Amino acid sequence: MISAGRALSSNGIKTYGLVIHGGAGVILRGEMRPEDERAYRSALGDTLRAGYEVLEHGGPSMDAVVASIRVMEDCPLFNAGRGSVLNAEGDCEMDAAIMDGSTLAAGAVAALRHVRSPILLARAVLEKSPHVLLVGAGAERFAQEVGFELVSNDVFRTERRVREWERARRLEGDRPGDGLVRSLQERMVPEPGDCDPPPSGQKFGTVGCVALDQEGNLAAGTSTGGLTNKKFGRVGDSPLVGAGTFADNRTAAISCTGHGEFFIRSVAAHDISAKIEYAGLALGDAAESALQKVAGLGGSGGLIAVDREGRVAMPFNTPGMYRGFQLSTGRPYVGLYGAGT
Amino acid sequence: MISAGRALSSNGIKTYGLVIHGGAGVILRGEMRPEDERAYRSALGDTLRAGYEVLEHGGPSMDAVVASIRVMEDCPLFNAGRGSVLNAEGDCEMDAAIMDGSTLAAGAVAALRHVRSPILLARAVLEKSPHVLLVGAGAERFAQEVGFELVSNDVFRTERRVREWERARRLEGDRPGDGLVRSLQERMVPEPGDCDPPPSGQKFGTVGCVALDQEGNLAAGTSTGGLTNKKFGRVGDSPLVGAGTFADNRTAAISCTGHGEFFIRSVAAHDISAKIEYAGLALGDAAESALQKVAGLGGSGGLIAVDREGRVAMPFNTPGMYRGFQLSTGRPYVGLYGAGT
Repeated sequence: MISAGRALSSNGIKTYGLVIHGGAGVILRGEMRPEDERAYRSALGDTLRAGYEVLEHGGPSMDAVVASIRVMEDCPLFNAGRGSVLNAEGDCEMDAAIMDGSTLAAGAVAALRHVRSPILLARAVLEKSPHVLLVGAGAERFAQEVGFELVSNDVFRTERRVREWERARRLEGDRPGDGLVRSLQERMVPEPGDCDPPPSGQKFGTVGCVALDQEGNLAAGTSTGGLTNKKFGRVGDSPLVGAGTFADNRTAAISCTGHGEFFIRSVAAHDISAKIEYAGLALGDAAESALQKVAGLGGSGGLIAVDREGRVAMPFNTPGMYRGFQLSTGRPYVGLYGAGT
Repeated sequence: MISAGRALSSNGIKTYGLVIHGGAGVILRGEMRPEDERAYRSALGDTLRAGYEVLEHGGPSMDAVVASIRVMEDCPLFNAGRGSVLNAEGDCEMDAAIMDGSTLAAGAVAALRHVRSPILLARAVLEKSPHVLLVGAGAERFAQEVGFELVSNDVFRTERRVREWERARRLEGDRPGDGLVRSLQERMVPEPGDCDPPPSGQKFGTVGCVALDQEGNLAAGTSTGGLTNKKFGRVGDSPLVGAGTFADNRTAAISCTGHGEFFIRSVAAHDISAKIEYAGLALGDAAESALQKVAGLGGSGGLIAVDREGRVAMPFNTPGMYRGFQLSTGRPYVGLYGAGT
């Protein structure tokens, strides 16, 4: 588990910036082809730039979060939007949430199949409905009522995800539940000859962004295609306020990625906020301690967090996590691997 | 807002017992007909007995929670299972969650239309799947795979709920969202001639149970039909671990009822647990403080909680809350109204 160094206080100018993740999992330096590494680094760089430009021009953290997440939703490398993994029926089924730390307003959507940008719809739920969480066909009816165009599920499906899905079905068999548990504990090994985009440590793929704007407002967002070969309308932690996504100006903005069930059971994102608010922990300690609680239950994954001082934490207990941050006090950082791999 | 007195420590025998709620809302002594009051008191008494019998015989808190909630799901007076309110399409659409404080294992279901006991299915998700939250048709496919019989939605629909729904549609009109917000802020007034079961302070109806067994294990469960005339696959706080339902042996078991969106945004149930764990608050103070956070966002409702010492809290900021508790240290208590009403 590693944690980024704290951003130094700036010379009288308030720190602002953002942190992103593109999923945690079996991401190993030795198994990554150079061209794939370049593709991921480039996509993470584009993602940082999209959100940072908003902040640099004085825009709100909510806009930065949406701008960054949309880049990752549109990029087939990440398990969100286009490039989402396939569920047991062979469809992409997506979840997302966004939260405004200045008001604790939140919007979330789950089990979407026809909305191009789940994070945009989550924001529409926040802004245009009295609700927080809308699911399934109902959420898509809402999308239409507020002017979203519905698209074919094929828009999201990529060849790589179809191959991963077929492999998962071979590994997991057809028994409800059992197979999924087993495959989550095993490492997914690339098959001989399957040398097209990288080994699927991507079971835990999810994308997220947390941002602090020049006004000092925090926001957090998360978007995901969930678990490969998931069944039964399974919803993970990403769209659940307090589990995978949380923001409160008084504490921090957090987005998690990993084996969602364990993040739900430990209410991981809110746990970090509560450790800061009630136990007085610093952000990095709160984040590591919350992730240890997840690990204690048997869960793997990681998270990103930023607090109102611009301090950043990015702990993970998987071999790697696609991640990056850019603060007004320094240069952008992008990382893929854990320490020592 | 009121809070129940703390249970006295017993004479060397470990306290055990349970707390229940049947929803919070506009429940006023002056508007309740004597026969309705008797019906509610009787149903709450039956609910307490069902769970307490389990505990008295040394059974686990998880079984007590299920036993009590099933009584309320089967009783048409409460907004859960049979007697659930109708959504915008005129269907009953139900959510439930259960959590085991000894393992932090949890199971939850949302947007069910054909499962007679949502709390039983939530428990099956906990015990028979690797997941925590299953939604919609997928959850019902899971139900069939693990042996549940699916029933017609008519099983849940009662005449009273049809009348309430028709009234809500007249009040709220057809605009997405707006009407629902307005009606949640207004008090529902019974119409002349509509003197069949009581005035619908029941917009916030939900049922819940929290229990402490003789082994010292805590459990929490919640089941609901959600909001009358709800649209778009709206899911409230009840099935969300940390929001409407949470249990941790180290702190407390909590079940909430009220305007769910505000309980989600403040992650109310986990907030109580965190205030105990990190700020060292006593149960009653933690519960009242968490409910004040909900109220600060504009939310109404209440909650029940029990800690590992058998202390009970039942705060609410609505005129009334159907509630009760029975502890091994004393006689059963049932209450409907707030102080001074």
